[in-house]
Amino acid sequence: MAKEFTVAVAGATGAVGVEMVKTLEKRNFPVKNLKLLASARSAGKTMKFKGEDVVIEEMTENSFKGVDIALFSAGGDISKAYRKCVVDAGAVMIDNSSAFRMEDDVPLIVPEVNPEDIKWHKGVIANPNCTTAIMLVAVAPLHRAKGLKRVVASTYQAASGAGAKGMAELIEQTRQILNGEPIEPKAFAHRIAFSLIPHIDSFMPNGYTKEELKMLNESRKMLHLPELLLTCTSVRIPAMRAHSESLNLEFENEITPEEARAILEAAPGVTVVDDPEKKLYPMPVDATEKYDVLAGRIRQDISRNDKRGLDIFVSGDQLLKGAALNAVQIAELL
Amino acid sequence: MAKEFTVAVAGATGAVGVEMVKTLEKRNFPVKNLKLLASARSAGKTMKFKGEDVVIEEMTENSFKGVDIALFSAGGDISKAYRKCVVDAGAVMIDNSSAFRMEDDVPLIVPEVNPEDIKWHKGVIANPNCTTAIMLVAVAPLHRAKGLKRVVASTYQAASGAGAKGMAELIEQTRQILNGEPIEPKAFAHRIAFSLIPHIDSFMPNGYTKEELKMLNESRKMLHLPELLLTCTSVRIPAMRAHSESLNLEFENEITPEEARAILEAAPGVTVVDDPEKKLYPMPVDATEKYDVLAGRIRQDISRNDKRGLDIFVSGDQLLKGAALNAVQIAELL
Repeated sequence: MAKEFTVAVAGATGAVGVEMVKTLEKRNFPVKNLKLLASARSAGKTMKFKGEDVVIEEMTENSFKGVDIALFSAGGDISKAYRKCVVDAGAVMIDNSSAFRMEDDVPLIVPEVNPEDIKWHKGVIANPNCTTAIMLVAVAPLHRAKGLKRVVASTYQAASGAGAKGMAELIEQTRQILNGEPIEPKAFAHRIAFSLIPHIDSFMPNGYTKEELKMLNESRKMLHLPELLLTCTSVRIPAMRAHSESLNLEFENEITPEEARAILEAAPGVTVVDDPEKKLYPMPVDATEKYDVLAGRIRQDISRNDKRGLDIFVSGDQLLKGAALNAVQIAELL
Repeated sequence: MAKEFTVAVAGATGAVGVEMVKTLEKRNFPVKNLKLLASARSAGKTMKFKGEDVVIEEMTENSFKGVDIALFSAGGDISKAYRKCVVDAGAVMIDNSSAFRMEDDVPLIVPEVNPEDIKWHKGVIANPNCTTAIMLVAVAPLHRAKGLKRVVASTYQAASGAGAKGMAELIEQTRQILNGEPIEPKAFAHRIAFSLIPHIDSFMPNGYTKEELKMLNESRKMLHLPELLLTCTSVRIPAMRAHSESLNLEFENEITPEEARAILEAAPGVTVVDDPEKKLYPMPVDATEKYDVLAGRIRQDISRNDKRGLDIFVSGDQLLKGAALNAVQIAELL
């Protein structure tokens, strides 16, 4: 009989937590026992798992006895507070927050990108930021073939990146604008309905946001490319739950769009959607609830005098590949 | 007494035409006589100009007798069909379509960028594509100071770029999605509400769209920089009427964000909105109905090992600077 695991989901009622539970079920993860953990506010409520009601428990330091794998998506502060008791209980923490991603003894993993890094974990494995995960699923196979040198990224990030409250605010605010009612932004810094906000996470002294620098630093760590050059502009748009990215890529070696398509068609976790004449290209509506990242608009960068540049557009479900799916895939690797 | 002109607006009932009439009024253009021209369908209806009702006439070959300036925004085919009779009538055609932009004897003008090119017009002056106009208002002053070499652009284009029917479809489709009703895309190739479409205008054999190549070719012409390198990814997002652009710029010479801000603060047609700590940066809602292009998120490109790179984010009203305002400004130059 195959081994089964006791799995805890910390932050089970959040947008990512809900998708983690669904993904464990859909991918038939060998769950012996599922513990749903949340704040006292949600304790006593139930969530469905494989047709049965599972009661949500308040998360305490004693929640992790007997747990094999703890999927965390309750914010960085909660992850930091519980790290020791999870590891002491002998569980492996797979953390969706940014709290430990850049720590030297915490592997940061996308299974399609750097599964080998799972070997050196010491009880904590980090899930990368959603935009990094979505980008690298498509870019890592190209890097392995041609050597990635520089990336210029502009993102089109969905409301789901701000959690369930972000999606609710987009819907509510859109209704208010359509009805001519006043709005009051809360989840976002400004009005998002029928507009955009070029600001995600806080600003650093160099003018970049933390969100933008995560893409650089996390990519360097996961690709083992400390010299990688990358600039990013992260923009929130009024899309619902899939992130898109416009990527301008420079490689060490020449690469044609045909080669890139062949590489991506053979790569796990990527679906090539690239037939412009048939109006086929990646779009958030098509990426929503899909495990794969969609890649398309693949073309030779005409702003270079050589064939070492590609432009590519990707869309991926922020809650799945950007968060819940990737965490469950890491658990599968274990 | 100052000279006054007989001005015709061809395509007066379209999204851009309406803004042309409003802009002529708001900027107090010296109009002696205003002729509003449209298809037979709209003939007989009226539009307000300076408090008075002006009757819309059906456009015919005889419409341009006595006209000094004809502002065209009725599509490229109409512009081509009427070019000869407008010029023969002695009027100057200022055309918002892409029909003549790349012709050698047609100047393509943004008054803040290349006003000197108006000297060599032969009866037709072209208005650039909206994304080119919005970009160059901010980029041309930096180019003059530091020598522009290469641009990597990703756009966030509003529904207004598809005209009044584009804005109406965004509103109607958004309502339908919120109400769980079926949708039927017409103005756009796919669903735009709560999503995006990385496809504007038709595709060329190299995988770029015409829209993306316009930015390259029109920028080269207007900046008199035939060697300029530029790649663009044009994306329609569910914003209403201001376009935004994420621009990665490479210059011949070093340029710091402080220098760039100082140059743009002194430049006509640009408002610098760049105080991240106060959550101030360009956004479509703030650019809407503004004459100026908003520029912000100005930072040194960290993906380079020198100081010749800048990242910048701009938003501009697509119907105004991207179309109607620029046409009227060209008329003012005349």
